[in-house]
Amino acid sequence: MQEFRKDPITGRWVIISTERARRPQAFARESVPPGVAGLSPFAAGQESQAQPQLLAYHHGEGGAWSLRVVPNRYPALRVEGVVEHQGEGMYDRMSGIGAHEVIIETPDPTANFADLPEARIADLFWAFRDRVNDLKRDFRLRYMVMFKNHGETAGATIAHSHSQLIALPVVPRFTEEELAGSRRYFDYRHRCIYCDMLKQEAQTQSRLVWSNDGFAAFTPYASRFPFETWVLPRRHMSHFEQVTDAEVRQLAVVMKQVLQRLDAALERPAYNFVIHTSPAQDGALEHYHWHIEIIPRVVRVAGFEWSTGIYINPTAPEEAAAFLRDAVLKAVLKEQETAAPLPAGSAR
Amino acid sequence: MQEFRKDPITGRWVIISTERARRPQAFARESVPPGVAGLSPFAAGQESQAQPQLLAYHHGEGGAWSLRVVPNRYPALRVEGVVEHQGEGMYDRMSGIGAHEVIIETPDPTANFADLPEARIADLFWAFRDRVNDLKRDFRLRYMVMFKNHGETAGATIAHSHSQLIALPVVPRFTEEELAGSRRYFDYRHRCIYCDMLKQEAQTQSRLVWSNDGFAAFTPYASRFPFETWVLPRRHMSHFEQVTDAEVRQLAVVMKQVLQRLDAALERPAYNFVIHTSPAQDGALEHYHWHIEIIPRVVRVAGFEWSTGIYINPTAPEEAAAFLRDAVLKAVLKEQETAAPLPAGSAR
Repeated sequence: MQEFRKDPITGRWVIISTERARRPQAFARESVPPGVAGLSPFAAGQESQAQPQLLAYHHGEGGAWSLRVVPNRYPALRVEGVVEHQGEGMYDRMSGIGAHEVIIETPDPTANFADLPEARIADLFWAFRDRVNDLKRDFRLRYMVMFKNHGETAGATIAHSHSQLIALPVVPRFTEEELAGSRRYFDYRHRCIYCDMLKQEAQTQSRLVWSNDGFAAFTPYASRFPFETWVLPRRHMSHFEQVTDAEVRQLAVVMKQVLQRLDAALERPAYNFVIHTSPAQDGALEHYHWHIEIIPRVVRVAGFEWSTGIYINPTAPEEAAAFLRDAVLKAVLKEQETAAPLPAGSAR
Repeated sequence: MQEFRKDPITGRWVIISTERARRPQAFARESVPPGVAGLSPFAAGQESQAQPQLLAYHHGEGGAWSLRVVPNRYPALRVEGVVEHQGEGMYDRMSGIGAHEVIIETPDPTANFADLPEARIADLFWAFRDRVNDLKRDFRLRYMVMFKNHGETAGATIAHSHSQLIALPVVPRFTEEELAGSRRYFDYRHRCIYCDMLKQEAQTQSRLVWSNDGFAAFTPYASRFPFETWVLPRRHMSHFEQVTDAEVRQLAVVMKQVLQRLDAALERPAYNFVIHTSPAQDGALEHYHWHIEIIPRVVRVAGFEWSTGIYINPTAPEEAAAFLRDAVLKAVLKEQETAAPLPAGSAR
C-alpha cells in the first residue's frame, strides 16, 4: 500500500507506505529499562533534593505521599517578570514568562507508569486538572501543555516515572492549526469534527483499540507514526479541565489498556503522550474537543519529515490497531483496581 | 537567558533557554562512525545490487564513476499510476504517486561527506539540479524534497554516504507556510524577507558562521536546535535549479566549511540537511528564496515539541556561531581543491 492520507483537522498529509511492512517486533529498538532504586532524585526520602512542593496526594501506606508536583529544577520558563515584546532589527522576541512543573507519579523509582494501579494513573490526570485550575488564574498564561516523556529516546532525562506541565504566554502554532481546522469544519457543518470522528471510528471499528463509556482509543486515519494512538472523551468538552471525577476514572482504565498493549506489542517502547486542549483563557468552544495523542518512538524522524511536515508511516493504522487489540496483557490487569473508590476533588 | 524568539518567515516561536547551558562537547552523543568497506550495497563493484542507474558522473580514476543516482529500493512513492483523490467517510486520501531517488556521493563506502574534495561535494548539488530538471517535466510532480540524512540518529539506514530526492504530487505544508509567510512580508515591504535577513546578518555578524561571494552560512535568530545553520545564496533565486555552475562551486566551499566545523565542534554529529525551494511547477517568485537548512541531531525531540511546534533550544545561536567560527579544522581544508576546474553542465 502506498497512499497519501489527509488529517481532516489540520490538513496535513501522511504517506502510508507499507513496502517495508514489518511486524511490531521489528520496531522494538529500545526497551525502556525500569528506573534504578537509589539513583532517583524523585524517590521517597529524597524530597529535600527536589524543589518546594506545589501539590501532593497521600494514598501511600500510613498516609505517605503517592504523587507530588514540584517546579522543574531547570525550568524552560519562569513565572517572574512581565510579558514584554521587543524588536531586534527585523526580528521579534518576547520575555520568557511561564511555568514548568514536574508531576512525580509514584514514590517508587522502579515503577512503570502503565503498570501502576488505575487509581494512581487517575491521580496523574487529577493532578493535571488541579494544576491547570490553579495556573489559569494567572491571565498571562494562555496555554498549558501537559505531557509525558517515557524513556530516553522520548526525551526523558530521569527514569523515575513523571510527567510535565508547561504553561505558556502564547498559544502554540500546532494548537492554533487544530483550532482553525476544527473551526472551519464547524462553520461548514455545524458539528464538532472530533465528535464526527468518534462516530465514524465506532462504526468502522477497524481502527478502534479500546473503549469504555467515557473514552475511545483509536489509531487515527492519517497516523504519522506506527502505532500512534489517540484517546478521545465521548462527551464533547473543549477543555481538559472540564473532565469529571467519573471520567478521570474511565480515562485511567483506557490509558492503562492502551499503554500496556503498546508495552506488549512493541516490547516496552519509549513513548510520548500529550494532552491537546483549548487555550486556558478561552470559554467553552463548540468546535474543539480535547484529547490525548500517544506516540511510540519506534522510528527515526529524518530530514524529509523535518522539512516538509509530511510523515512517511510504514504501518497502516488498521494493521496497528489489530495488533494492539490482539496484544496479550499481563495478569495484573485482572486486578479489580477500578473497584476502589477515588476521593473527589482536590482534597484527595 | 530565557526568551521567546519568533521566526520572521513562519511566525513559529522558539524558547531560547540557556539555564542548562552546555559547551558543545556536552552535546556529543553519537559520533557517526565511518562506513565499513565490504558491507555497502552502494560501493564500486556492487552496482548490480542497486537499482538501474538514472545518472552517473565519472571523475574516478580511469573514468570510473564518482557519483551515481539510482531509484530507492524501498521507495516511499512510485511514478506509475495517476493522482486520484478518494473519500472514505469524512476522510480523504490520494494515490501515492511520486519518485524516490538515492544519490550515491562516492564509490568509497568509508568516506565522510564533509571530507570529500569540494569538487565532489559540488557534484551532489549538480546531480540534484540535473534530477530536478528531469523530474519537473512530469507536471504531476509539484515539489522536490532534496535532503541528506547523516548517521543513524538522523535516520540514515545505510552508512555509505548518500542523499535522497523525493518528488511529491503535493506542496508540503511547511513549504506552504514559508511561501505564505514570505509572501506576507513581500506584500507589505516589497522586499524578499530572506534578502533582508542576509543584509541584517552580514551587518550584525554575531550569527555568521562562514561566507563567500556566493553564499552565507549563519545560525538563524530563532534557531530551533543547538547549532542549526542555514546556508543562503546571496543572489535572489526562488528555485534551487536556477543555480549556476560558479555558484555550485561556491556552495560546495561553504557547505564543506560548515559541515567540517560541525564535525569539529560536536565530534562528528548525526545531522540532516534539506534544500528548501519553491514548487517545481511555479515560475520564478519574487518573495521566496531557496536555501539549505542544516540540523545537527544532538538533542532529543520530546512530547512538548511534537505537540506544540515550539522548540526549546538550550544554546543561543550567537553562542553556537561563535563556537563554529572558532572550530579548528583539519589540515585537509588547506588543500587547494577549489583550484580544480569543474566541467560544466550535465555532461560532467
